[in-house]
Amino acid sequence: MALKFARRMDNMKASEIRELLALTADPSIISFAGGLPAPEMFPVEAWKAASNKVMDEKGRQALQYGPTDGYLPLREHIVKRMAKVGVTCTPSDLLVLSGSQQGLDFMAKAFIDPGDCIIVESPTYLGALNAFKAYEPKFLEVELDDQGMNMEQLEKHLKENDNVKFIYAISDFQNPSGKTWTMERRKKLIELANKYDVAILEDNPYGELRFEGEIQPSLQSLDTENRVVFMGTFSKIFSPGIRIGWFCAPPEIMDRLNKIKQGADLQSSTILQMELAQFLDDNDIEEHIKKIIDLYGKRKNIMIDAMTKYFPEGVTFTNPEGGLFLWVELPEYMNGRELGMKAIEKKVAFVPGGAFFADNVRENCFRCNYSCMPEDKIEEGVKRLAEVIKEALR
Amino acid sequence: MALKFARRMDNMKASEIRELLALTADPSIISFAGGLPAPEMFPVEAWKAASNKVMDEKGRQALQYGPTDGYLPLREHIVKRMAKVGVTCTPSDLLVLSGSQQGLDFMAKAFIDPGDCIIVESPTYLGALNAFKAYEPKFLEVELDDQGMNMEQLEKHLKENDNVKFIYAISDFQNPSGKTWTMERRKKLIELANKYDVAILEDNPYGELRFEGEIQPSLQSLDTENRVVFMGTFSKIFSPGIRIGWFCAPPEIMDRLNKIKQGADLQSSTILQMELAQFLDDNDIEEHIKKIIDLYGKRKNIMIDAMTKYFPEGVTFTNPEGGLFLWVELPEYMNGRELGMKAIEKKVAFVPGGAFFADNVRENCFRCNYSCMPEDKIEEGVKRLAEVIKEALR
Repeated sequence: MALKFARRMDNMKASEIRELLALTADPSIISFAGGLPAPEMFPVEAWKAASNKVMDEKGRQALQYGPTDGYLPLREHIVKRMAKVGVTCTPSDLLVLSGSQQGLDFMAKAFIDPGDCIIVESPTYLGALNAFKAYEPKFLEVELDDQGMNMEQLEKHLKENDNVKFIYAISDFQNPSGKTWTMERRKKLIELANKYDVAILEDNPYGELRFEGEIQPSLQSLDTENRVVFMGTFSKIFSPGIRIGWFCAPPEIMDRLNKIKQGADLQSSTILQMELAQFLDDNDIEEHIKKIIDLYGKRKNIMIDAMTKYFPEGVTFTNPEGGLFLWVELPEYMNGRELGMKAIEKKVAFVPGGAFFADNVRENCFRCNYSCMPEDKIEEGVKRLAEVIKEALR
Repeated sequence: MALKFARRMDNMKASEIRELLALTADPSIISFAGGLPAPEMFPVEAWKAASNKVMDEKGRQALQYGPTDGYLPLREHIVKRMAKVGVTCTPSDLLVLSGSQQGLDFMAKAFIDPGDCIIVESPTYLGALNAFKAYEPKFLEVELDDQGMNMEQLEKHLKENDNVKFIYAISDFQNPSGKTWTMERRKKLIELANKYDVAILEDNPYGELRFEGEIQPSLQSLDTENRVVFMGTFSKIFSPGIRIGWFCAPPEIMDRLNKIKQGADLQSSTILQMELAQFLDDNDIEEHIKKIIDLYGKRKNIMIDAMTKYFPEGVTFTNPEGGLFLWVELPEYMNGRELGMKAIEKKVAFVPGGAFFADNVRENCFRCNYSCMPEDKIEEGVKRLAEVIKEALR
């Protein structure tokens, strides 16, 4: 027997993060590898109360099929979230997703024929690269500096390729780099998308988790021609275990995304959508987000302070204004994957940077998460990391 | 602006059932259109108890990310469900899905390049046709008689096409026809799949809901060469609102399906998987299934009796031994879609048969669901349907 799989399967690989997470299940390991929210922040009691209310008042509805676009009262709550990033919308502009990862798959499904181009930041979220690869795109990479994508490189790609379908951008506290786009770059991006007639996928899972500085308007709020699709999620401001995200999209694109949702899984869970809407009715999510920001901001500072103290010269790192991740750059001769194996031996883990590049892979870098380790372990973990790096110094 | 979507979007259309369901939300309509389980059977209190236990004992784990293949204790329960259809497996043969509709998408994603063939029953589940279309297959249709697929037609397709990737079969109480494959046809199907080296996707949402007669072994239990992928779901034996289904697949295929799952949505909801496992720990699901069987069997009989009594000569219908649907064949000159519009005027609804054919569409047929209407409404609805049909008689 030799079953023949689709050609796309040659490109798809298992996420290195998911495989690494299995490795770091050992509780003696200090893990900066995953992207896990701090479990101590989960409002377990409040969720339980909301669930019970839904079961008592609307249990049969909650266990039944529901509409493809999502539970209306939940979409009404999402309208409020969109207002926070400067977007005025109605529930009909929204589609509830089974986590925002699903949106990455849908966007490529809607736009990509084999060989079509997607412009991505370099580095970028590796889960997006994996999702997109199922549709056999060509990736065009644009370097990310401290202000966002390099606009000259971006325009060069747009000028030289007539089959660019969309630009994928994580403009706030990017995974993996922790970088945030400036207002100037945001406006320039919209201008170029208009000029070259391409769509934009704005992935915004961390935007509300800002520790300091001014909140930047979302790309969608700057959109002048209905070409930005916004993707949000409750994973980082509430819980990833409920797998609830959303699309906010212009009607012409939403029409396609809705059909794709029908084919892909009919709808997201009725019961979780109703429970989440009830939770948002009965609790002050803004207060909850503030608590998360306080905790993550504190942990980020501890990580930055420890890196400043322990890391040798020649190693640099970003200092994010929000989100869950920061990015470490090593001397050119070092290799993050090799370092990663040695770090595991010293019971500390991170994600080697190579996984976050589409084609032009750089290995002298890695990603650190600071949201889910207690403060004392962050300091200790960075100390161990510093030892590993020092041993690799030439 | 003229955004260019992927070529596949030309083929994808909104499900007629989902759109019809919106129309039948009017509570004065007697609807045989949807495929809804009877909401009065949902064990709301038992689910609430299980949820509370999970929240009290493992709340933080439930709200956190979990593994891609699914929550282990839930997969251990699914092992028991597989035993009921004659399959011996372990949790590592299983992948938890966000509803079994997701499996349709994944299977096509794993196997189909544009132009590859999928062999389908005629008629077949329209949600499968929509999911598959995203991967631009060619459909090869095989007529369904009272014993299963026509084996001569099937072999002819296999002989004449060297790019058949899989055969899609709903062998028990098929949606839409209510038909069940005989043992002889099941064995012959496996034999032909082996001979022509193709995979089989067995979609089995209703197999456990058998009112009468002998349970047939699943296609996967007859598989001799690791080429059958089995798809199951809790939607019909428990609740569709939780969106939990599963794949049971041979290792070589599972490896691909797992990668696809990672890209598509990372994992299914941790919290719902844990709550479902707890519910299955604390309750006798077999007892619950028996109650569903009693209710649906009774409703099916009432529908059959009413159709026998009221339908005019020249109209035939299947008499399923289980499941949720039966199939009505009209005289050739009648059109199910036209009849459907007139039926809505008389406040009764069904799904016109045309939607269930891949290419060779027949319109003189329709599907009736009997699971979710109370008994008195079934009799009244069939009476109204009979009037509509009689008015269309020539």
